[in-house]
Amino acid sequence: MIEKTTRIIGIDPGFGRLGYGILEKENSSWKVLDYGCIETSTKKKFIDRLQEIHVELQKIIKKYKPDCAGVEDLFFAKNIKTAMSVGQARGVILLTLIMNNIEVHEFTPLQIKQAITGYGRADKNQIQKMVEMELKINSKIKLDDTADALAAALTCASCLNFNKKTAKL
Amino acid sequence: MIEKTTRIIGIDPGFGRLGYGILEKENSSWKVLDYGCIETSTKKKFIDRLQEIHVELQKIIKKYKPDCAGVEDLFFAKNIKTAMSVGQARGVILLTLIMNNIEVHEFTPLQIKQAITGYGRADKNQIQKMVEMELKINSKIKLDDTADALAAALTCASCLNFNKKTAKL
Repeated sequence: MIEKTTRIIGIDPGFGRLGYGILEKENSSWKVLDYGCIETSTKKKFIDRLQEIHVELQKIIKKYKPDCAGVEDLFFAKNIKTAMSVGQARGVILLTLIMNNIEVHEFTPLQIKQAITGYGRADKNQIQKMVEMELKINSKIKLDDTADALAAALTCASCLNFNKKTAKL
Repeated sequence: MIEKTTRIIGIDPGFGRLGYGILEKENSSWKVLDYGCIETSTKKKFIDRLQEIHVELQKIIKKYKPDCAGVEDLFFAKNIKTAMSVGQARGVILLTLIMNNIEVHEFTPLQIKQAITGYGRADKNQIQKMVEMELKINSKIKLDDTADALAAALTCASCLNFNKKTAKL
């Protein structure tokens, strides 16, 4: 566990759309630095879309230099083919993070929902509202993927806070 | 398409076992340089197994410097969870190849079976025998994954030969 995490990148993995959010520690709270979505072109070959994910994520990492990542774990997919595609994108994302020496923490959707709303069955809308409130984002976040990425980042932040507190006991 | 491919790496993707085979062009035929299996420890965390795949594949690439890769495409898995795991391993493999400027060709199991045996419903045993015969391997290849990787490399080789021939017409 990194002693002094100052920046976290949260990621909601996908091959068509990958949500990301960057948090920075300011005193004892976390503020949002940036958030958005990497979208890959459906006109491109699948392998080129995977490369695009790597290149774009690399740019974001170079810009914000996060030392920790919260990545949503995936268990559900429409079918085997989709699971395979999203899996490949997730593999590319994880390797890109590892190669940049970013400490990766994985969270299931249930863990994220519980960390954000205290309720494991919270819906997308509730998550989004809590994320906006917690991070003082006034404008409505446009995409689910982005809200989910910020939620993963916040979960990572609270997990780090918790570990620090228990280490002090 | 690379003009003068001299070395091909064939890969049968997986996260527990990843088969690989290296072919080199000698005059107009292909000979086998090396083949084997990267096995990741079940005791490790999944993300560490992904990193191990990258590190070990990187070593093989550094040693043999292939300029082309034939990678088996995956469509089948026991369930969504397995598809997601194998998908992530495949994403790591593809990104490792791309980052080393290796031209990636993907083949379905059907394409590989047809290229190797001329018959799309050939079984594992038939594939293995044809690979051993084609590459003059006297000892029996120990693992399915390795035979499948060499079959993917051979499919890539015949695909390159075919493209060269048609380019001359």
